[in-house]
Amino acid sequence: MKTFLGEDFLLQTDTAVELYRRHAAGMPVIDYHCHLDPEMIAADHRFEDLTEIWLGGDHYKWRAMRADGVPEEYITGDKPSYGKFAKWAETLPHTMRNPLYHWTHLELNRVFGVNKALNPSTAREIYDDCTALLHTPDFSARNIMRRMNVEVVCTTDDPADSLEHHMAIKASGFAVKVLPTWRPDKAMAIDDADAYNAYIERLEKASGITILSFDNLLEALQRRHDFFDAAGCRISDHGLETFYATPYTDAEVRTVFRKLREGKKPGDTDADKFRSAMLYEGGVMDARAGWAQQFHVGARRNNNTAMFKKLGPDAGFDAINDLNFAAPMNRFLDRLNSSGMLAKTILYNLNPRDNELMVTNACNFNDGSVPGKMQFGAAWWFLDQQKGIENQLNALSAGGLLSRFVGMLTDSRSLLSYPRHEYFRRILCNMLGNDVENGELPASELPFIGRMVENISYYNAKNYFNLH
Amino acid sequence: MKTFLGEDFLLQTDTAVELYRRHAAGMPVIDYHCHLDPEMIAADHRFEDLTEIWLGGDHYKWRAMRADGVPEEYITGDKPSYGKFAKWAETLPHTMRNPLYHWTHLELNRVFGVNKALNPSTAREIYDDCTALLHTPDFSARNIMRRMNVEVVCTTDDPADSLEHHMAIKASGFAVKVLPTWRPDKAMAIDDADAYNAYIERLEKASGITILSFDNLLEALQRRHDFFDAAGCRISDHGLETFYATPYTDAEVRTVFRKLREGKKPGDTDADKFRSAMLYEGGVMDARAGWAQQFHVGARRNNNTAMFKKLGPDAGFDAINDLNFAAPMNRFLDRLNSSGMLAKTILYNLNPRDNELMVTNACNFNDGSVPGKMQFGAAWWFLDQQKGIENQLNALSAGGLLSRFVGMLTDSRSLLSYPRHEYFRRILCNMLGNDVENGELPASELPFIGRMVENISYYNAKNYFNLH
Amino acid sequence: MKTFLGEDFLLQTDTAVELYRRHAAGMPVIDYHCHLDPEMIAADHRFEDLTEIWLGGDHYKWRAMRADGVPEEYITGDKPSYGKFAKWAETLPHTMRNPLYHWTHLELNRVFGVNKALNPSTAREIYDDCTALLHTPDFSARNIMRRMNVEVVCTTDDPADSLEHHMAIKASGFAVKVLPTWRPDKAMAIDDADAYNAYIERLEKASGITILSFDNLLEALQRRHDFFDAAGCRISDHGLETFYATPYTDAEVRTVFRKLREGKKPGDTDADKFRSAMLYEGGVMDARAGWAQQFHVGARRNNNTAMFKKLGPDAGFDAINDLNFAAPMNRFLDRLNSSGMLAKTILYNLNPRDNELMVTNACNFNDGSVPGKMQFGAAWWFLDQQKGIENQLNALSAGGLLSRFVGMLTDSRSLLSYPRHEYFRRILCNMLGNDVENGELPASELPFIGRMVENISYYNAKNYFNLH
Repeated sequence: MKTFLGEDFLLQTDTAVELYRRHAAGMPVIDYHCHLDPEMIAADHRFEDLTEIWLGGDHYKWRAMRADGVPEEYITGDKPSYGKFAKWAETLPHTMRNPLYHWTHLELNRVFGVNKALNPSTAREIYDDCTALLHTPDFSARNIMRRMNVEVVCTTDDPADSLEHHMAIKASGFAVKVLPTWRPDKAMAIDDADAYNAYIERLEKASGITILSFDNLLEALQRRHDFFDAAGCRISDHGLETFYATPYTDAEVRTVFRKLREGKKPGDTDADKFRSAMLYEGGVMDARAGWAQQFHVGARRNNNTAMFKKLGPDAGFDAINDLNFAAPMNRFLDRLNSSGMLAKTILYNLNPRDNELMVTNACNFNDGSVPGKMQFGAAWWFLDQQKGIENQLNALSAGGLLSRFVGMLTDSRSLLSYPRHEYFRRILCNMLGNDVENGELPASELPFIGRMVENISYYNAKNYFNLH
Repeated sequence: MKTFLGEDFLLQTDTAVELYRRHAAGMPVIDYHCHLDPEMIAADHRFEDLTEIWLGGDHYKWRAMRADGVPEEYITGDKPSYGKFAKWAETLPHTMRNPLYHWTHLELNRVFGVNKALNPSTAREIYDDCTALLHTPDFSARNIMRRMNVEVVCTTDDPADSLEHHMAIKASGFAVKVLPTWRPDKAMAIDDADAYNAYIERLEKASGITILSFDNLLEALQRRHDFFDAAGCRISDHGLETFYATPYTDAEVRTVFRKLREGKKPGDTDADKFRSAMLYEGGVMDARAGWAQQFHVGARRNNNTAMFKKLGPDAGFDAINDLNFAAPMNRFLDRLNSSGMLAKTILYNLNPRDNELMVTNACNFNDGSVPGKMQFGAAWWFLDQQKGIENQLNALSAGGLLSRFVGMLTDSRSLLSYPRHEYFRRILCNMLGNDVENGELPASELPFIGRMVENISYYNAKNYFNLH
Repeated sequence: MKTFLGEDFLLQTDTAVELYRRHAAGMPVIDYHCHLDPEMIAADHRFEDLTEIWLGGDHYKWRAMRADGVPEEYITGDKPSYGKFAKWAETLPHTMRNPLYHWTHLELNRVFGVNKALNPSTAREIYDDCTALLHTPDFSARNIMRRMNVEVVCTTDDPADSLEHHMAIKASGFAVKVLPTWRPDKAMAIDDADAYNAYIERLEKASGITILSFDNLLEALQRRHDFFDAAGCRISDHGLETFYATPYTDAEVRTVFRKLREGKKPGDTDADKFRSAMLYEGGVMDARAGWAQQFHVGARRNNNTAMFKKLGPDAGFDAINDLNFAAPMNRFLDRLNSSGMLAKTILYNLNPRDNELMVTNACNFNDGSVPGKMQFGAAWWFLDQQKGIENQLNALSAGGLLSRFVGMLTDSRSLLSYPRHEYFRRILCNMLGNDVENGELPASELPFIGRMVENISYYNAKNYFNLH
């Protein structure tokens, strides 16, 4: 019987163990997509207690607690810190086989050195021990990042953001690069004309451009895009319900935008045309700048109206959608490709039934210019768990080139999430180890396979994103 | 080499064997969803022969026989009993790797003690031996249930049913609880206005209410709902092609119903509005009564017109559908939730590509009131087989809380189907055993894991449904 | 550690090894669906070098090279033969875990006896050795087929084809049967009216019928159908984006065709009606002739416009689609079945999320006339790899009758692809071996299981297609 989370965790063969130890374990972390708050890193934040760093904004845990019958006051309410933690400790054993059970214990073990299973009988001790550690300088925000061997993180930022914290971090000489990512979702969020106009005003201030027309909007965005580029940004990201590739004329889109500025929400077709134009123009900006563009597609958000009114977005009421998107995705990518403006691209799906669709369609647009130009993105959100990762890697292997994969990311709001890279690397090494031992890959090629593990763990991302 | 169906069947590790023996094998069966005929139990029916109890209404076996090239006269025709059985015995070896092969042999072994594989050379002996047993009192309907350690079964019943057999069973003092389930599909089946009006007349008689208006219809249904509740019913069930959540006004729905009563079939939009109203009002009734509601979604039925004309529904010509339903499902549940009227809910999908969608969207509506309030239902129909069950358990584990699962059901028309609970429990124990031995769950938590097995096998259903 | 591609490749148990050696390895190959050029076989073509036979038309390899960053001039351009091969050898290690890695090495080993892994350091030697072999008579087109134990191949042919090469092959007394397959896709390709009319003219010449009306078209097709039948054709095939089953009147379809002949492209609805009529009438022809009909559904083709303009179709820019098709597929099959005109049918899907849908819906139309009449086709194109094959076999097992499966095909343009039959048989034997050793199939039934392996490898196809 193997030890829970032990040295050979998830590694079923000797070859897997060897691959992991020699080629994966020591590789630095390039976390090229996350939701860390740059202010926290700029300030080298010190955490109050384990509840703050762990339960504060983690809607994955909130969902589990609600499913386990925990009242909301212990989740997002104002119950005392330990009270909330104790409820989480009650819920945790009920998450067995859910990724939360592994994440939680990996984080306790790899960051805090805790060797016990968290449950109601160990809750107090673990809470106290970890909180005491958090009160030491070794567990400041920056020291946690250093401890986890992080080399680069890319946060997620709005075009109107000042990036002041990124600049402060850089100026401070912090060895971990903290770079912004261009996420212009709000510039496309036209469902609420008032909120949209408020956003456009923020963009006017940030860009110094008065935005009366669609052309002004693109000009303002381009100026901010240049500003992000100067701040070290090399990646964009888009959270989309689906891809938009409705044919439009410039005149139509200009009219939609003018009406929006007058407070008029467009009809469905006009809205699709506007989004199609924005998505395309954003792609062109990324291509010109030599960035990589990311698309996260397939979430259905804010499904629980009552809780949305109470808590707003990102509170644990989002799930997997089932829209078909092969046609608009191809039309969108094809248009960029036809105009020679298709940037390096990473495509993430949330419905696992679309894994094979995603990887095979991505590969329609490889052009020999960059190894792995079109990427099938790492297992995302609900899929970021053992079987989800295995399925993503298997689909990528069968439909594309695993060896060119840019690898894992945390997608996390928390500084404790870096063990996900370890988790991913173990699963990767395990698959390759099994293949070699089963005679499905040649043992004579182990040196190449070792380099492949290093590449997927680290070098591929380093080269692909030009972050250095 | 392991023995076929032996003691350690489906159990790959010592831990799995231990979990199964100590925590699963002895648990009583709560079969909270089946299609047993209550009259058969009320009468304590004695079976003529193995053909009657096994092939009489089993459209799973019929499909297999047709696929194997057996003429219809041996399937639903009037060939003699043993002739039909012999054809089944010829087909059976051809079902290897199909769940029928396991179900068949489990039923022969666990109910009748048969230790041979059924094939043409053993057919006569097995038929004769089992038929002889069926002629003994030990194999009456009730004694089969007792022998299989059944504690509760919930049948599937129409609102217009008298429930006379359920009452007779209760009055007889039979120790196994046989409770009705509220299945109002016919009250929504408006595709055929004439059949619908005939049904409404049956409902008038059962409820004692003249149904001229939509409000009368709801009143009549509410009266029957109360009657079912008094008879011990705690669960509703709905067989839906998709979820209906089209916005409507009360006036519109009243008009649709009035026209229906005049024999006029509504157009598509009106029909959707009517179904949306019915689904919502049914959900409100269930919530008020404190019941659990079930939704079975994704079957495409009666695809073979020629055979439908000959044999009617449920004859083996149904299959998996591919409608997208995330949007209407969320709108439907959200509306109930917004009005504080969302009952405990179990969601079943038939297309396995929707497993992850189903479980993550179910969890949008957990509210901390009941552990596991929103359930991702057990593997259904075509998915009720080894890999289907594993996939359902894995999707549930990754996207929700396995430990709160209410577990297995037979969904069967046959008294021989109880070994499916054993089958499910073995698969469950095997997964958990593997996880512990692989170091993916901590061995120190085995006592908790053992209780989890007991809960999923028995106690969760007992608590969730309030059947006692 | 097992040897790469060794004797027990993919066989995990002793039972699997035994099943493979005794019941699979020696079975002849019936390759009932491929894209071989009959002219190459008629001429008993001798190959220039390894590049010609391997990279000439293989868009699978082209995609991989583009993904690996190889410039197009080395893929479809005019770089010298060895230069192209060397680029392929550089790419190949990067395809580890992609089926190309297994196919490539199986082909090198099983056809040419190469025992080394192909990579840049072995490229020259392997190229030279294989090219030298290709220059010997033993490696002519026909001798490769003999060497691979091929008994029958069915090519893919247009109704307007003369079949002259098939006739020449037959006349030559070549022991391998090379039969045509009826693939009338161009007779339905009405998106481009000019191209369509050019095609109709070819069909006029081939059939000797002047095609002015839809009735003429059907008459001409029927005449060609008869001609194909006389040439030994027993199978049709259709590459469809989706199934077409839009209701139409004969008058409507006649009008659509008349306008087409006048150069007018029909609107979407009219086009669907025309395709629905063509699909139905083709099904009737197949049923009357006693053929089997195949449908390949779910590809999205020619997604990269820029490359389509350069290279045309089938150049590596196709992928998996996500259209829902349960409804039109059932309507189409049901209409044929209702008129007693449903031929033996094989249904192939390209999106693996539709596996279970495909097999369960196929089984709606088994009628007891032919064992395995309705077939869920072998893993196709992107799915033709280890996990894709396993998933197809598992879905088929759970939803239908594995034992009646007509088995594998290459779907290939290349004479080197026959090891895919070996690959498939190994996976099949491995599954069955595991089941027996795990106690999931009875060891006492091993004789039956051995025959099942022989049937799926060979006899089922032989009987089903009536090719002899």
